[in-house]
Amino acid sequence: MWVSTPAPALRLLDQTRLPADEVYVEITTVDAVVDAIERLVVRGAPALGAVGAYGVAVAAAQAAREGWSAARLDAEIDRIREARPTAVNLAVGVDRTRTHVRDGLDAVIAGATALFDEDVAANRRLSALGADWIADHVATRPIRVLTHCNTGSLATTEWGTGLGVVRELYSRGLLGLVYVDETRPLLQGSRLTAWELRHDGIDHVIQVDSAAASTILRGLADVAIIGADRIADNGDTANKIGSVGVALACAAAGVPFVVAAPSTTVDPTTPSGDAITIESRDSAEVTTCGSVTTAPPSSVGFNPAFDVTPARLISAIVTELGVVEPTSHTSMRSELPATDGRDPHDRVDA
Amino acid sequence: MWVSTPAPALRLLDQTRLPADEVYVEITTVDAVVDAIERLVVRGAPALGAVGAYGVAVAAAQAAREGWSAARLDAEIDRIREARPTAVNLAVGVDRTRTHVRDGLDAVIAGATALFDEDVAANRRLSALGADWIADHVATRPIRVLTHCNTGSLATTEWGTGLGVVRELYSRGLLGLVYVDETRPLLQGSRLTAWELRHDGIDHVIQVDSAAASTILRGLADVAIIGADRIADNGDTANKIGSVGVALACAAAGVPFVVAAPSTTVDPTTPSGDAITIESRDSAEVTTCGSVTTAPPSSVGFNPAFDVTPARLISAIVTELGVVEPTSHTSMRSELPATDGRDPHDRVDA
Repeated sequence: MWVSTPAPALRLLDQTRLPADEVYVEITTVDAVVDAIERLVVRGAPALGAVGAYGVAVAAAQAAREGWSAARLDAEIDRIREARPTAVNLAVGVDRTRTHVRDGLDAVIAGATALFDEDVAANRRLSALGADWIADHVATRPIRVLTHCNTGSLATTEWGTGLGVVRELYSRGLLGLVYVDETRPLLQGSRLTAWELRHDGIDHVIQVDSAAASTILRGLADVAIIGADRIADNGDTANKIGSVGVALACAAAGVPFVVAAPSTTVDPTTPSGDAITIESRDSAEVTTCGSVTTAPPSSVGFNPAFDVTPARLISAIVTELGVVEPTSHTSMRSELPATDGRDPHDRVDA
Repeated sequence: MWVSTPAPALRLLDQTRLPADEVYVEITTVDAVVDAIERLVVRGAPALGAVGAYGVAVAAAQAAREGWSAARLDAEIDRIREARPTAVNLAVGVDRTRTHVRDGLDAVIAGATALFDEDVAANRRLSALGADWIADHVATRPIRVLTHCNTGSLATTEWGTGLGVVRELYSRGLLGLVYVDETRPLLQGSRLTAWELRHDGIDHVIQVDSAAASTILRGLADVAIIGADRIADNGDTANKIGSVGVALACAAAGVPFVVAAPSTTVDPTTPSGDAITIESRDSAEVTTCGSVTTAPPSSVGFNPAFDVTPARLISAIVTELGVVEPTSHTSMRSELPATDGRDPHDRVDA
C-alpha cells in the first residue's frame, strides 16, 4: 500500500474502475486521500483503517514539503479522519499513527505498516475461527454461502474478513457455491467480490440484492457471511445497506447469519446500533448505474449507505480474538477474550 | 392498445426505452407479440392479460393474411399463451378471446376490448377498496408508502393496481412520500414507477432495493403496497423478485404489507405458493445494467424473476371483489365475495 519511490506515496488499486480496468493511483496529498475515500477508490472498513494510518504519512510528507504549521497539519489529518463517518476503522487508523507525527515521517510509516501487518494476521486468524464455527454449525456439504458487498482482499489489507472465511472454507474443501449479492448502488459484489472469486477459481453466481431473501427462503444457501463497518458493544452491526434484509431472511429460514470482522471494528464506546451514524450518500449513485441514467431527471435518490442489523438477528460475530454468539445481554467488550486485560479496541489501538 | 388503421395492430409503449424515450411499437405478427412479452416491452400481470387477449387478434389477422390452417393458428396462439410462465393473466387473456376465433376477427377484438374495459373498472374499484383499508389501518398522516416494481398504468390497462391505490390515496389528500424500490435487474421502479409518479406530481424518492428493509425498520414507511403476478388459493403471492424481502421487514416492524391485484390474478387451481413456477430469466440481465457490464465476463448471473410471499406475511389482499386478510385457513376462492355463485376466476373468465 505504501511505496517510497519515486516519491513517498499511498498506492491504491482504483476499485471504481474494476472489473473493466486494473488501474493503480499514487496518492501524495491530503486532498487526494480524502477524494479516494469519498469516491470509494478504496473502501471496506479494514482497508480504510490502513488508509487512515498511511494517510497520516501522506499528510506529514505534504506538511514537510509545503511548510505547514502544526495546527494546519492537525486540521488536515482531521479531514482524513472524517472523510467517512460510519466505519470506526478509519478514525482508529488515523488516531494510531498521528501520535507518531512528532517522531517524524519514518515513525508514522512504521506505525502504519505495523497496523497493516496486524490486520493481515487478524484476517487470517478470524477466517480460521469463522470456518471452524461454520463447519460446526452447518451440516450440509458442500456448504453454499451467500455474501453481500465486498469483504475480500480489496476491502481489507490482504486476505479478507467475510470473504476470508469463504477462502478458508474453500481451502478446506468444504465450499460449494457462493451467491454474490451484486450490492447496489455501487455494485461491490458483482464488480469486486466476483472479481476476487474468479481470481481464486471459486464457483459463484451473481444475483440482484433483492433475490437474497428468496434464495435463503428456498433453501439454496446454508449460511450468510457479511463484514462489518462498526459493531456496537451490544453486537448491533452497521454494514452495507441490505445486510439487515439478509439477516431477516436468515432468521425466518433458520439459516446462520455470520458477521466476520477484526476486533478493531468493535466500538465499545457505542452502546447499541441506535448510536451509529448512518452515512447518507449522493442521490446520483441511486439514479444512475455506472454511466447509465436509470431514473427520470427530476427524481431524487434516497441513499443510506449502511443499515444496522440488530444483534438478535446475528448468529455469530467472528473476530480474531474469538467468536461471540450475541444474546440480549451481550457486551462485546466483556465477551471478547482480552488476554492482556484491556478491551479489544484499546488493545489493537495501543 | 388496439389500433385499426393503417392496419389492425396491437400498439404498445416500449417500456424498455423509458424513461429516456417514449416510443410506441405497432405489432402485427405473433413473433412480435412473443418478442414484446419476452423482452418486457410490455409487462405487469394485468397488462399481459390484455396483451394476451389482443394477441389472439394479432394471430387471427395474421392467419387470415397468410392462410394458416386452424391447427397452425392454435399452435401460434399457444406460443403467446406460454411466452411467460408466472403471471396467470396472460393465459387467462388468451383463453378468453381464443374462443371467439371461430366468430371472426371482430369478435376477437370485441372480446379483448371487453376484457380491457373490465380491467380498468376493476383497477378503479380495487384502488378505492385498498385506500379504504389503508385509511382504516394506518394512523399516521400523511401516509408514507413503500412500493416495489411497477404496478401503475404501465403494468395494467390504465389506472394501476398497487400504484392505483397510491393514486387513490393521493386524490384523497392522504398521501405523503412514496419510497420507490428501483427494482433490479430491469429497474421497473426507477424507470417506470418514478416516471408515472412524476407525471402525476406525487412526491417520491428512489432507493436501491436492499434499502427497503432498513427504510421499513427505521419507521420511515407506514405501509408497503405491491402488485401480484399470481395469487394462490391460500393467499401465497408470486410477485417481482424482492417482494418477500419487503414482506419480512414489514412483519418485523409491524407495518402493513398490502397486495393489490384484480381477482383475475387469483388462481384457485394453485393451492399454495409451492405450486407456482418461478421464471428464471437471462443471466445477462444481472451482469449488466442498461448498456453497462457490471461483472467480470466469466461470472454468471442467477436471475429468478419472481419470489413467493407466504400468506402469513400479507396483511391484506385487495381485489375489486373485496379485501381478504389472510389467515392459516384462507381460501381465496371461498373468501372473495362471489355475487353470482362462481369463483372469481371463472367469473372474470366468463
